[in-house]
Amino acid sequence: MTNLREEALHMHRLKKGKLETRAKVPVRNSEDLSLAYSPGVAEPCKEIFEDPQSVYEYTVKGNMVAVVSDGTAVLGLGNIGPEAAMPVMEGKAVLFKSFAGVDAFPICLNTTDVEKIVETVKVLEPTFGGVNLEDISAPRCFEVEERLKKEMNIPVFHDDQHGTAIVTAAGLLNALKLTNKSLQEIKVVVNGAGAAGIAIIKLLKSMGCKDFILCDSKGAIYEGRPYGMNDLKHELALVTNRGKKEGSLEDVVKETDVFIGVSVEGALSKEMVQSMNDDPIIFAMANPIPEIMPEDAKEAGASVIGTGRSDFPNQVNNVLAFPGIFRGALDVYATHINEEMKVAAVKAIADLVSEEDLEADKVIPAPFDPRVAPAVAKSVAQAAMETGVARRKVDPEAVARKTRELTIIEDG
Amino acid sequence: MTNLREEALHMHRLKKGKLETRAKVPVRNSEDLSLAYSPGVAEPCKEIFEDPQSVYEYTVKGNMVAVVSDGTAVLGLGNIGPEAAMPVMEGKAVLFKSFAGVDAFPICLNTTDVEKIVETVKVLEPTFGGVNLEDISAPRCFEVEERLKKEMNIPVFHDDQHGTAIVTAAGLLNALKLTNKSLQEIKVVVNGAGAAGIAIIKLLKSMGCKDFILCDSKGAIYEGRPYGMNDLKHELALVTNRGKKEGSLEDVVKETDVFIGVSVEGALSKEMVQSMNDDPIIFAMANPIPEIMPEDAKEAGASVIGTGRSDFPNQVNNVLAFPGIFRGALDVYATHINEEMKVAAVKAIADLVSEEDLEADKVIPAPFDPRVAPAVAKSVAQAAMETGVARRKVDPEAVARKTRELTIIEDG
Repeated sequence: MTNLREEALHMHRLKKGKLETRAKVPVRNSEDLSLAYSPGVAEPCKEIFEDPQSVYEYTVKGNMVAVVSDGTAVLGLGNIGPEAAMPVMEGKAVLFKSFAGVDAFPICLNTTDVEKIVETVKVLEPTFGGVNLEDISAPRCFEVEERLKKEMNIPVFHDDQHGTAIVTAAGLLNALKLTNKSLQEIKVVVNGAGAAGIAIIKLLKSMGCKDFILCDSKGAIYEGRPYGMNDLKHELALVTNRGKKEGSLEDVVKETDVFIGVSVEGALSKEMVQSMNDDPIIFAMANPIPEIMPEDAKEAGASVIGTGRSDFPNQVNNVLAFPGIFRGALDVYATHINEEMKVAAVKAIADLVSEEDLEADKVIPAPFDPRVAPAVAKSVAQAAMETGVARRKVDPEAVARKTRELTIIEDG
Repeated sequence: MTNLREEALHMHRLKKGKLETRAKVPVRNSEDLSLAYSPGVAEPCKEIFEDPQSVYEYTVKGNMVAVVSDGTAVLGLGNIGPEAAMPVMEGKAVLFKSFAGVDAFPICLNTTDVEKIVETVKVLEPTFGGVNLEDISAPRCFEVEERLKKEMNIPVFHDDQHGTAIVTAAGLLNALKLTNKSLQEIKVVVNGAGAAGIAIIKLLKSMGCKDFILCDSKGAIYEGRPYGMNDLKHELALVTNRGKKEGSLEDVVKETDVFIGVSVEGALSKEMVQSMNDDPIIFAMANPIPEIMPEDAKEAGASVIGTGRSDFPNQVNNVLAFPGIFRGALDVYATHINEEMKVAAVKAIADLVSEEDLEADKVIPAPFDPRVAPAVAKSVAQAAMETGVARRKVDPEAVARKTRELTIIEDG
């Protein structure tokens, strides 16, 4: 760990950050200048003034994502502020570029006020083709995302919510194939009523899953629970836990099929796994130490186990989702990332694990599997075109091909 | 012109804009990921949380300038809006990078409201080491700049004002050497009371110039003029034209030494030049057609003539100033760009024309003279350290050396 610490500090200091802006058209002499700047630059300006959508043709907008944070919920570090969040947002921008050729730029905001965040991001719309919200604490993150989605004409995506939800759902789809259960029939317990937990329930619901119980640190959330509620939990209580079960996680996890943890180390015991239905599926994504260690879950009878960690099988890593999702959305000049596009991403990720390869320790592709971003981008672009949020038509195969050309990751 | 139009459109369309974000540390495999992103990235985050100024060491902030516009006064095109302004702001970012290795990013704002512009730019402070305001119409540009300078802790510089003023002043210094006149004694007429005209007067005043008359389209501005005034003109009327001369440009240009035009085509006639003192100096910077054509001014007896055009001698081109100014300011982590730093830039630019080289057609260095940005950066960094706006000490020679290494322009 000391080594990693020293190495990480050294690298960041040596390079002074991880990102740079580069001229695709360098200006070396007056001829270059007359095209890239005055007087030639007036021509694309005039074109865009005449036809606003051509801003996608003549500028960086069509390939540029804002990685927006207020620094209130950064990694496991919490509210460290916008300056200290910069290395993470730069890192995210590097992932966008490395995995899918998406230009991305860190926008760290010197405010935690919802209204100000919303106003600021809206005012930045001309420059960007999409907005990736990152590490904004709940429940403000929900309001920020909802407002921006309504009030902007470019895709807005809160990765802490939907990235995690999409990859978890992909893993779950494949785990269900192995256990011969169906999405429509399983009982699911989600432990952790933060951004990711809530997004997971919403996404699985939209995919046909019906029976959920959501737990927070005070146990099962049910309609009318007299303590520890807020607007969001209340809203979710109306569509989950229709049996209005009360009690602790230990009480309500009994006789369920799937445990999804986005909570804290050690929240799930072996006994609790044993109390679940046959062939239970466990996604224990607390970081850095999961709700239950994979070996313990396996001993207790779990059929499939996923975590957030790279040193265990089935890592739920958002990098499987966001680069391809934005690649696909940008390539069709999408106005939004809707549920259909998210579900398309889920299926694309799940389908990359072939029938023959499918096994308990491989329900999710590896983070550096170079097939993932192209497949996701293609499916997302297609879904966008089918659901009316695309502003132009493209050949989905061309989207996949382009993504393959732009990615620089190495298999393995 | 048709060719330039077609070529410019083709280039912008082919490249889809002129800028990209690039990873200085690409993520190709899980080892890269562990340093640039999770878990290693937490280390610089923690360092910055402990010591806020170290954001300059570990992130892009220390080399990143926001090129901010609302699209209200773009080139000669006027108020074309923030999307149509994007090609210009990208171009500006390309110039920052090509001339001085400064990373710059276009921020085109979907508002023309002063309060909203100020609030937005302030909220973006964590990401940027400096702000270059661009193509914001007068008089809003003055208030935006004043407010931001007061309310932010990074340099804010309105290039349309100060860039033009600095290069004009440099040319004037050298022109005065040729004509054996002194800054303290000359009479100056500035035609055009927009952003550049007002900035030119302010800068020349701070350098010791005393006798100005500012004209707008209604003629000389004087204290108490009963028509066509605003707060700014009123303020300037109190420190210029102390003889309270009334009348047209034609009336007041008589027996002056210097004409500076930031106005309109044809505003200065040969007769008006002939009415000036001996060896008059003319900067006729209306674009694309100057207040008087150089050959006409010369025939009428002008000793030195500068314009905004690359096809005449003595081009007043802002690119001589802003890349080096920001390079110098960023390298000392400056909090502001103050008058002393601007004057240092003026002198650095002027001094690059040696005594032997100095002649009427060469009072300003060529835009692609690779000595300019290093010299400006060095002088600006030094001035910042001497005037208490630098947050760290550097060797000015090292600033010049680094700038030379980073520039990619070709001499000639």
